[in-house]
Amino acid sequence: MKKLSLLYEGKAKKLYQTAEEAILLVEYKDEATAFNGEKKAQIIGKGHLNNEITSMLFSKLHIAGIRTHFIGKLSQNEQLVKRVSIIPLEVVVRNVVAGSFAKRVGIEEGTTLKKPIVEFYYKNDDLGDPLINGDHIDVLELATKDQVQELKEQALKINEVLRTFFLDLQIRLVDFKLEFGVTKDGEILLADEISPDTCRFWDVETNQKFDKDVFRRDLGNLTDAYTEILNRLGGRIA
Amino acid sequence: MKKLSLLYEGKAKKLYQTAEEAILLVEYKDEATAFNGEKKAQIIGKGHLNNEITSMLFSKLHIAGIRTHFIGKLSQNEQLVKRVSIIPLEVVVRNVVAGSFAKRVGIEEGTTLKKPIVEFYYKNDDLGDPLINGDHIDVLELATKDQVQELKEQALKINEVLRTFFLDLQIRLVDFKLEFGVTKDGEILLADEISPDTCRFWDVETNQKFDKDVFRRDLGNLTDAYTEILNRLGGRIA
Repeated sequence: MKKLSLLYEGKAKKLYQTAEEAILLVEYKDEATAFNGEKKAQIIGKGHLNNEITSMLFSKLHIAGIRTHFIGKLSQNEQLVKRVSIIPLEVVVRNVVAGSFAKRVGIEEGTTLKKPIVEFYYKNDDLGDPLINGDHIDVLELATKDQVQELKEQALKINEVLRTFFLDLQIRLVDFKLEFGVTKDGEILLADEISPDTCRFWDVETNQKFDKDVFRRDLGNLTDAYTEILNRLGGRIA
Repeated sequence: MKKLSLLYEGKAKKLYQTAEEAILLVEYKDEATAFNGEKKAQIIGKGHLNNEITSMLFSKLHIAGIRTHFIGKLSQNEQLVKRVSIIPLEVVVRNVVAGSFAKRVGIEEGTTLKKPIVEFYYKNDDLGDPLINGDHIDVLELATKDQVQELKEQALKINEVLRTFFLDLQIRLVDFKLEFGVTKDGEILLADEISPDTCRFWDVETNQKFDKDVFRRDLGNLTDAYTEILNRLGGRIA
């Protein structure tokens, strides 16, 4: 299946139309960005790594009964997905306190939460993706109340699958960001990616970070960190 | 009833023990602060005005069936209240877009919301009183899920009473902040104050502001603005 017109270019991916109306092609870029685009770098191999990792995790979730947009990996840095309208919400699940959450609530980074929490951020670069609540979502007409409830349930279910899966690989799934989309028929599917760009992965023993914080906080080589995640998943770069 | 030991001094009020264990005395100060204390001024008469206005509004709410901590006005700048443990949440109700909300969601100040929204902020000066959601409240153990539900219901009920009441006085109740407390018996009571310090009041015709934005944004004389609210309420400074 070939790329036709470019539909959208984001910070880390490009989205193309294919010959099939309902099927899109995602191309993972070799670019790292942080702080709403203020910090940027080209990192050869990043697109390949994230495409591999996302493909493996979406397959895993599919087997666990989660409905996703993922169809299949097409090449090193390309995959095919079902066309959806992205709901403009970033759904964040947290198991351990880290990042902006530590600052917001004044709890030390690294503290394990007694149960996972879910947050909704308004996906809007101009506003800096602000945290919002259910009433805001309602007023902004970003999703219906039922959809918000379903997103929250799906997010917690995905968390249970991934958290235990990564724990077996000696990795703490600290937190992660999901995006969902709606098909023409109104079905909600997990969309976007699940990768070290969108998750915090810490080694269970050493708390070493294998995620975008390596780039955000200059903690070492991003490719090494992402490769470690791929290796623990049992994957490898061809 | 006399002031005994000072229990707490906030930015705008002092709280004293009385001879009755379950009754506290609130003294309204002649101080205005904004931006988490960064902007400050002494404004003679402000304590008197806010004590008068709060006393009138809490009496109004009592008649409308809202359970509050308010017992009665004691002097120009003093009132008696029931002792409660303050729940560390600022409960904000918004009818019209203004202030931080306009910036957060990118809707123009002055836009009327299709229905009122409720927000919870973590009452914590060190953290800058951040917006939080139900999961945060749960993790921080600030209130139970049932209490959060009750706070939201109470806030919307108070909004309906006050919004229509002020509309009759040709004032738009744009938004306001409430605090609640819990008695020894676990009853939730409306606490703190309701005044131009904690509400946005705009003239229905001219949108002239009669609230703390006059001070925050240097829009004129604070005492004049607060006196206008008291006058419209039918009160007057002795």
